[in-house]
Amino acid sequence: MDNSSAIGVFDSGLGGLTVAREVIRALPEEKIVYFGDTARVPYGSKSASTIRHYAEQILAFLKTQDVKAIVVACNTVSAYALEDLRHSVPVPVVGVVKPGARVAAAATKNRRIGVIGTEGTVKSGLYERFICEIDPGIRIFQKACPLFVPLVEEGWWKDSITREVAERYLAPLKEEGVDTLIMGCTHYPLIRKLIGEVIGPEVQLINPAYETAQELMRVLSREQLLRTDKTPLTKEEQYRFYVSDAPEKFRAFAEAVLHFETPDAERVNIEAY
Amino acid sequence: MDNSSAIGVFDSGLGGLTVAREVIRALPEEKIVYFGDTARVPYGSKSASTIRHYAEQILAFLKTQDVKAIVVACNTVSAYALEDLRHSVPVPVVGVVKPGARVAAAATKNRRIGVIGTEGTVKSGLYERFICEIDPGIRIFQKACPLFVPLVEEGWWKDSITREVAERYLAPLKEEGVDTLIMGCTHYPLIRKLIGEVIGPEVQLINPAYETAQELMRVLSREQLLRTDKTPLTKEEQYRFYVSDAPEKFRAFAEAVLHFETPDAERVNIEAY
Repeated sequence: MDNSSAIGVFDSGLGGLTVAREVIRALPEEKIVYFGDTARVPYGSKSASTIRHYAEQILAFLKTQDVKAIVVACNTVSAYALEDLRHSVPVPVVGVVKPGARVAAAATKNRRIGVIGTEGTVKSGLYERFICEIDPGIRIFQKACPLFVPLVEEGWWKDSITREVAERYLAPLKEEGVDTLIMGCTHYPLIRKLIGEVIGPEVQLINPAYETAQELMRVLSREQLLRTDKTPLTKEEQYRFYVSDAPEKFRAFAEAVLHFETPDAERVNIEAY
Repeated sequence: MDNSSAIGVFDSGLGGLTVAREVIRALPEEKIVYFGDTARVPYGSKSASTIRHYAEQILAFLKTQDVKAIVVACNTVSAYALEDLRHSVPVPVVGVVKPGARVAAAATKNRRIGVIGTEGTVKSGLYERFICEIDPGIRIFQKACPLFVPLVEEGWWKDSITREVAERYLAPLKEEGVDTLIMGCTHYPLIRKLIGEVIGPEVQLINPAYETAQELMRVLSREQLLRTDKTPLTKEEQYRFYVSDAPEKFRAFAEAVLHFETPDAERVNIEAY
């Protein structure tokens, strides 16, 4: 494996760009190939078998891009399919759930952690399992928040309605007195401020994306896969973006998340993989 | 074509059951094969080319079910792909947009009609085109309401938050003084009462599903395709339901819409068509 190859990052849609953003911050010299499955988004309420099938197709596509490691930016895929995916490719595969669980377990003082995510992520119970492996004394309180993704996509990031929805979703977690809250879906960091205001300043918000990027860095270093060729790259050489639908909608969202001028995304017929 | 064959009805998901319900009411002796594309739902914000591709796959599946006519229950598919679909099958294909447009044009007194629907339905401008063909003097005011589908799916059908969202979406249409409002998405009739309260009692709500069932009846009659064999059928013989994902979630939603005990849905691998 050539250490000058790119890192593959994929998600059900464009939310995973919040993970790509952390990877770019942690590893500013690496190349990235991003894939967002905008033709079949969202994954959150779909079944485990369908999610696994979609993820295998995306892996088959990323293989054609000669990637040296893969980041599963989607919590739902990380929850349902990560172990299967590890058997499908010869390169390291990093998910978001385990790093998120680890940092939350380290952060909690009262050993009461809240997890918010899609229906699939919550149903999988994987955050709970990983945290219990670290410390079986920690209690986990979960809540699926299916309206957060469409609210973020509607652009109502600082909106009174989004706040009201958050109040309703987060009330049971507040009541349980959690001191740590895992934002278990890539869209949620985009309304981090609002979530923080609703859950209260005493609760620590965990964005698994940050810890995922750190984990990726450790894995690449251990496998001697960090890029050694220091020739500067243009943005076009460094970052390639692919989506399965509506590439013309990509840049507006991507630039709002990444804060730099991104290249256009290319469309991939993902069903063909 | 055998008049004892079933009528195919399809939608991006389960919302099209509101159309199936009207077909069942209008044609209680007919057999129905329903397909809901729950593995790729929603269609509303996806591109025309992706929608057309998905619809062609569904038609290929329905052909294997030996249907005598097809109802495109999805507004987005009706808006983007109906003419293409008509060339793909030798049986009559009825969409929801034209019947909805016709009944709205007949209903308006002040010739100001509102249309609410998905981003795709609104962008296609097809309701506007059909209404203008009937009466170019009618003015159309459109508004995409992308949060209505996830709110309905969350089960918040009579909720204060749903009401607030409706108030925001419908305010510009109220301001324009429409006297007729087309519910251009199959999920919306499920919150019909709430939409009616927000837009006001003076505005007539149009559910294209009702007129679509009437249109289907006329087409079947003209083509001599109405079922003539009057042997009574069990529910299992009469109604077959297929979905591309999560068949176990089907019955709860279906029975809330159809008000009878439905058979279980079967899973179809729609990408294979």
